[in-house]
Amino acid sequence: MITFPDAYQKVMDNFQNYGEEKVALKDAIGRVLAEDIFADRNFPPFNRATKDGIAINFEVFNQGQKVFKIQDVLAAGMPPIPLKDTTNCIEIMTGAMVPFNIDTVIMYEDLEIDNGLATIVKPPKKGQDIHIEGSDQKKGDLILPKSIKISAAEIGILATVGRSEVLVKKLPKTTIISTGNELVDVIETPLPHQIRKSNIYTLDAALSQEGIRPRHMHLLDDRGVIKKELKQALLLNDVLLLSGGVSMGKYDYIPEVLEELGVQKIFHKVLQRPGKPFWFGRQKETKTLIFSFPGNPASTFANYQVYFQDWLQKSLGLPVSKFNVFLNDAFAAKGDLTLLIRVKLSFDKGNMLASLVKENGSGDLTSLSLTDGFVILSPRESGYNKGDLVPFVPTRNII
Amino acid sequence: MITFPDAYQKVMDNFQNYGEEKVALKDAIGRVLAEDIFADRNFPPFNRATKDGIAINFEVFNQGQKVFKIQDVLAAGMPPIPLKDTTNCIEIMTGAMVPFNIDTVIMYEDLEIDNGLATIVKPPKKGQDIHIEGSDQKKGDLILPKSIKISAAEIGILATVGRSEVLVKKLPKTTIISTGNELVDVIETPLPHQIRKSNIYTLDAALSQEGIRPRHMHLLDDRGVIKKELKQALLLNDVLLLSGGVSMGKYDYIPEVLEELGVQKIFHKVLQRPGKPFWFGRQKETKTLIFSFPGNPASTFANYQVYFQDWLQKSLGLPVSKFNVFLNDAFAAKGDLTLLIRVKLSFDKGNMLASLVKENGSGDLTSLSLTDGFVILSPRESGYNKGDLVPFVPTRNII
Repeated sequence: MITFPDAYQKVMDNFQNYGEEKVALKDAIGRVLAEDIFADRNFPPFNRATKDGIAINFEVFNQGQKVFKIQDVLAAGMPPIPLKDTTNCIEIMTGAMVPFNIDTVIMYEDLEIDNGLATIVKPPKKGQDIHIEGSDQKKGDLILPKSIKISAAEIGILATVGRSEVLVKKLPKTTIISTGNELVDVIETPLPHQIRKSNIYTLDAALSQEGIRPRHMHLLDDRGVIKKELKQALLLNDVLLLSGGVSMGKYDYIPEVLEELGVQKIFHKVLQRPGKPFWFGRQKETKTLIFSFPGNPASTFANYQVYFQDWLQKSLGLPVSKFNVFLNDAFAAKGDLTLLIRVKLSFDKGNMLASLVKENGSGDLTSLSLTDGFVILSPRESGYNKGDLVPFVPTRNII
Repeated sequence: MITFPDAYQKVMDNFQNYGEEKVALKDAIGRVLAEDIFADRNFPPFNRATKDGIAINFEVFNQGQKVFKIQDVLAAGMPPIPLKDTTNCIEIMTGAMVPFNIDTVIMYEDLEIDNGLATIVKPPKKGQDIHIEGSDQKKGDLILPKSIKISAAEIGILATVGRSEVLVKKLPKTTIISTGNELVDVIETPLPHQIRKSNIYTLDAALSQEGIRPRHMHLLDDRGVIKKELKQALLLNDVLLLSGGVSMGKYDYIPEVLEELGVQKIFHKVLQRPGKPFWFGRQKETKTLIFSFPGNPASTFANYQVYFQDWLQKSLGLPVSKFNVFLNDAFAAKGDLTLLIRVKLSFDKGNMLASLVKENGSGDLTSLSLTDGFVILSPRESGYNKGDLVPFVPTRNII
């Protein structure tokens, strides 16, 4: 038996780098950028009109001229047309490239236009309403550093600099394995002593939100079959996520079979609730990591969120940060177990409050739908009080 | 010109219900549940052993018997075998169905087993380590109410009750339309006065995270083409998201063309920065809603996040809630514009702090990658101070 902090540390110490791959821009959302992105030109790439109106040489206005003859109309997407005579103006549209001998834009709202002549009714400031070339970024500037998660904002930036393909971190090849003769498929009607598979669906959904498309496997409680299937799975996967088959039962062959297949046990059983019989190991040759979670839904879910998610973040080169929330209820935490407690989060005047979710032991799946995440309560003789700050692990997108 | 709160209210008043559709369980993640889900059996569905060990009739132990003959072994997935003689015990595995004349489970750790006999070394409590049938949920209980967003936890629950297909809210059929002759494709090298499309990629990525797979369209600044294409788009879509073409420019045909096509303008221009030239309307016959955002990236992004996201939430029947964060910087907010200010969020002892992101006007896309969301600052003569609580709109998954 190992303490929760030790188990967590051992999992994190086994982070892996799975390398990089090119993906199309549209598939890059949610992935981790694996290359620095530089500006391919100045931004803005030219002196850019930011209003619709006219563009003038300010010096002419400054010397007293208020009425300007409109020489040309310049829209966004048109090559710039310089003033042939600096006492003229150009009618210019937002997004257009400002010609070289022009330095000031005056919006329609500050003009009267009549018969090809624009009269300025509100005095401009020199340089107004022009977004100057390179004022945001210079060509060659670093605009996106590697090791960030690509959100919609980054997709737009990557498009701007012409990245139709992007180098991102590879995701681990993963298989989810359910075990147990009592499990039937979701489409079947279980006999009285049977239940439907649920953990593989939960894990599949959670992984899909990380961009991982896992394979599925179900193992019956048959030693020979388990060994054959696991041997193959070790060769094909970076990660195996198992659910069930790791407690003390007569038919819980998984740990011994894994060890026979050259998987080194890193730990088995953690001083925590739920999820105590968690088995974690590594195959030396294939470098496959095995997260073998106990079979009940709340245990698998808690262990996935608390261990696997952080391990994945670190393996992808993302920072792993925990933040604290205020407990909204008191809680006893005597003994030697670290408690992973289901909570609902609420926001009160800028504070995050975690209220305990009523639950009924580790088999109670339905309470997970009321849960925003887990708070991690280390053992503490005096217990926890309302208002205590405790670490929080989210289990759904909250904000 | 309309105030920000009025504009927001008008958008929200135009929420739509797009009905329901059945999807496969694996495709339900992130969707909004459109039916109440009830327990199809008791949960647990039988008295379920929660430890590996032996199962006994407690009364026999209570009368002084400490050594029990092992009659049978009962694993998860096996039909239950009752005690033929209540002075016997059954060796039982986690997840197995406890037979009717048994009421207590004793784990291996509290036993000595030798030669088919189990000796109890630690006195049990009556009923221990049995998860009683129906103690979590009774058959027919509501276990998931409609109008919740389906996360990994709900996927597991749906699988448990045998839902291989789920009724979810339909998503609006959406087309993203970029406009402007200055735009070239991401794979092209722009001429000096051109820029690459980026807004459609940003919007596409943001929508994809809501499960919406929009179509794309690009309109050149040609009145005839714009009218023909928009007419078709109105027939085929619930929502059009336009970027560009709604300011005061000579070639900004969109608003007048839309009105010619029977689209009722609900408002044009909002007292806000960025994103002031936002145009919003509705076609009466097709009920298509048109969100026409100004073309610069930060404006489109802000308007999408602030208006469209909340409109979508409400249209899907989800609660729309804003929460407040603490400003970590002071900010001036004179005048009549509501400011949508880019901020980076940090967590400090359970508090959420919003620090202003350095930006350089609404054309500065790259600052969006430093941004976690917008704070909404209503006009206020005295400005905002560090520590003020202000509403926050996230623009990426933060927790």
